Amino acid sequence: MIKAAIMGYGTIGSGVAEVLETNQESIARRSGDGIEVKYVLDLREFPGDPIQDKIVHDYQTIANDPEISIVVETMGGVEPAYTFVKAMLEAGKHVTTSNKALVAEKGAQLIALAKEKNVNFMFEASVGGGIPIIRSLNACLTADEIEEITGILNGTTNYMMTKMSEEGLEFDDVLKDAQSKGYAEKDPTADIEGHDACRKIAILTSLVCGQQVDFEDIHCEGITKISAKDIKYAKAMGRAIKLLATSKKVGDSYCAMVAPCMLVPSHPLYPVNDVFNAVFVHGNVLGDAMFYGSGAGKLPTASAVVADMVDIAKHLNRNIFVEWSSKKMELTDYKSLENRFFVRTTSDMPAVEAAFGSVEAVKAEGVTGEIGFVTERMTEAEYEKKAAGLNGILQMIRVS
Amino acid sequence: MIKAAIMGYGTIGSGVAEVLETNQESIARRSGDGIEVKYVLDLREFPGDPIQDKIVHDYQTIANDPEISIVVETMGGVEPAYTFVKAMLEAGKHVTTSNKALVAEKGAQLIALAKEKNVNFMFEASVGGGIPIIRSLNACLTADEIEEITGILNGTTNYMMTKMSEEGLEFDDVLKDAQSKGYAEKDPTADIEGHDACRKIAILTSLVCGQQVDFEDIHCEGITKISAKDIKYAKAMGRAIKLLATSKKVGDSYCAMVAPCMLVPSHPLYPVNDVFNAVFVHGNVLGDAMFYGSGAGKLPTASAVVADMVDIAKHLNRNIFVEWSSKKMELTDYKSLENRFFVRTTSDMPAVEAAFGSVEAVKAEGVTGEIGFVTERMTEAEYEKKAAGLNGILQMIRVS
Repeated sequence: MIKAAIMGYGTIGSGVAEVLETNQESIARRSGDGIEVKYVLDLREFPGDPIQDKIVHDYQTIANDPEISIVVETMGGVEPAYTFVKAMLEAGKHVTTSNKALVAEKGAQLIALAKEKNVNFMFEASVGGGIPIIRSLNACLTADEIEEITGILNGTTNYMMTKMSEEGLEFDDVLKDAQSKGYAEKDPTADIEGHDACRKIAILTSLVCGQQVDFEDIHCEGITKISAKDIKYAKAMGRAIKLLATSKKVGDSYCAMVAPCMLVPSHPLYPVNDVFNAVFVHGNVLGDAMFYGSGAGKLPTASAVVADMVDIAKHLNRNIFVEWSSKKMELTDYKSLENRFFVRTTSDMPAVEAAFGSVEAVKAEGVTGEIGFVTERMTEAEYEKKAAGLNGILQMIRVS
Repeated sequence: MIKAAIMGYGTIGSGVAEVLETNQESIARRSGDGIEVKYVLDLREFPGDPIQDKIVHDYQTIANDPEISIVVETMGGVEPAYTFVKAMLEAGKHVTTSNKALVAEKGAQLIALAKEKNVNFMFEASVGGGIPIIRSLNACLTADEIEEITGILNGTTNYMMTKMSEEGLEFDDVLKDAQSKGYAEKDPTADIEGHDACRKIAILTSLVCGQQVDFEDIHCEGITKISAKDIKYAKAMGRAIKLLATSKKVGDSYCAMVAPCMLVPSHPLYPVNDVFNAVFVHGNVLGDAMFYGSGAGKLPTASAVVADMVDIAKHLNRNIFVEWSSKKMELTDYKSLENRFFVRTTSDMPAVEAAFGSVEAVKAEGVTGEIGFVTERMTEAEYEKKAAGLNGILQMIRVS
């Protein structure tokens, strides 16, 4: 029996214990041995919970126990998770985490440490919940140069955009609804400002290019400025607005951005609604591929953590190569990215054409006192220059 | 440098050589060493082709060369592929194949032989072309009990159904178009009768249950009876007709079937059009997931073969565990599967209600001399019993 410890008995941590219990038999078959939770690290006690006798409060208890092979980190946040995870790897224990903040900031370093110690540091659950996108990039799409990776990586905002689209509601009302359903947190900043999606695309880009991509370098816009009017225009254009996190290969570098985007129905990400996540990948020989599933939630995320545990169990004496060095990748300025741009303005069409040349006018039902249009394809830099020559711009959304 | 051989220099085989050449550098980085093609086995010569000097006509040349570590089989068909692959594994060489006929019939046996010889037998490209569904089932979704796997696994028929739906054409016209575009073969039987999809769902079901599933045991209907009228009804219902290959867990067994099905827009497989393939998976903890991509074509399929080669390069001295024993899985009779059924008949509504009880009538634009309806949910067996009591049934399509 392989002995494991769970650090952090919140939603995901307790989900991991539940999945290990529920699918005990098949997990034992696939990992060649059963996996048993020996310790659960948490500040709290859990009287009455099946794991109540396994609770410990000092991470050293786990690090110092030679019986423990696998440690699950589901605490969230960079500290103290980083200190704990580092100690576990140094003690020769394999680690799997669902913590995107930790992975985005310390991933390269922890991967290197794991390699040095001949153990594994895995993080399937840190991006896309139950969607096996990390393992797909590391072990499946290895014949390709990945030229684009674009994802709907945040379930909260995707739920909100879906709801706004289906019910014509305003942002604030939909946010309240998402909070009441438990999809959005009390302080929803990380989700609605795109920070969560930004960390995830930083992780995916790092894996695709094999170097460290800092999320602080990625241009990031959230969905807070999207209004019911924007949705009306999108509908008039037969499109859906989604918060996309995207990364594109440009020469030897990558160009990444998080921003709302209007998608055509033929785009693989168009039908991805509610709390679902999806990742679109374009490889130079594979062509287009897409991975879809539950991007969050207790059991789907726990499923990804436990899949890591099974993979670790199959590689107990062996480091699985992950290409992600700590060498920093200098991203190409997002202003070189090309798009078409949907714009709303209080100016008139002659003024629009004076600034942008030929555009495509868009009319939305019941919207007056402004006009909407879509520009031709141009870079972000060109757009900014042209937009500076037009007064009264109310909104700009990229059109893909 | 790892030396490889390609058996069969047709579309896929030449694609493998091309991908190894195109992405040489990243493949070397990811596999820890470069991969070089030493031999190409084919009956023909290829004067002027970059591999012209590598052509051999006797598979024993490859089997007897101790330098060869990896052999690619892209010949198709069970024989002589089986004899050649067996000889390679017995000679201690790793094998990857794109050959669904070989894998469906001999997969369990070749996996066991590879294990015995401490090498690997891989077959990512045999199902879903570039979609990494095999590795996802073997290595990613390992925390789950897979309760359903349903796929659009044949690009030819999906192209045809899309074309019929978009242009209102009849089956025969669309088949001719698919043949002229090279999507359908001169003898299209294997595609349009569902045999190709049937072998693929047999492979996926085998991997999911860990036992041998014989494709001959799977109830299989093709798309040859789908008419422009059916498409009209589907549109009236807001649905799309797709050829689905499905497998559902029933107790300790599985129930599998290949048949056209009417899908609602909210189904993840609904937007999968043209030659694309997709696989929907439902796990007991993961929930719903979907994998989408190019199901066929030279480079996408070659991408999957080369990804296998990279995986093999990382496991040269080690067999990767695959759960697929030769113990035969006794499938549950498909007649216990539950569905709703769309039916067209020349009988009148009183006769329909006498046979089926309460049904939902469907009207299609411009269709006269018949009526269409959808039954309540019932098993295939119940449907058959009730349908026997109704005269003039023109068509039945399952509704999911």
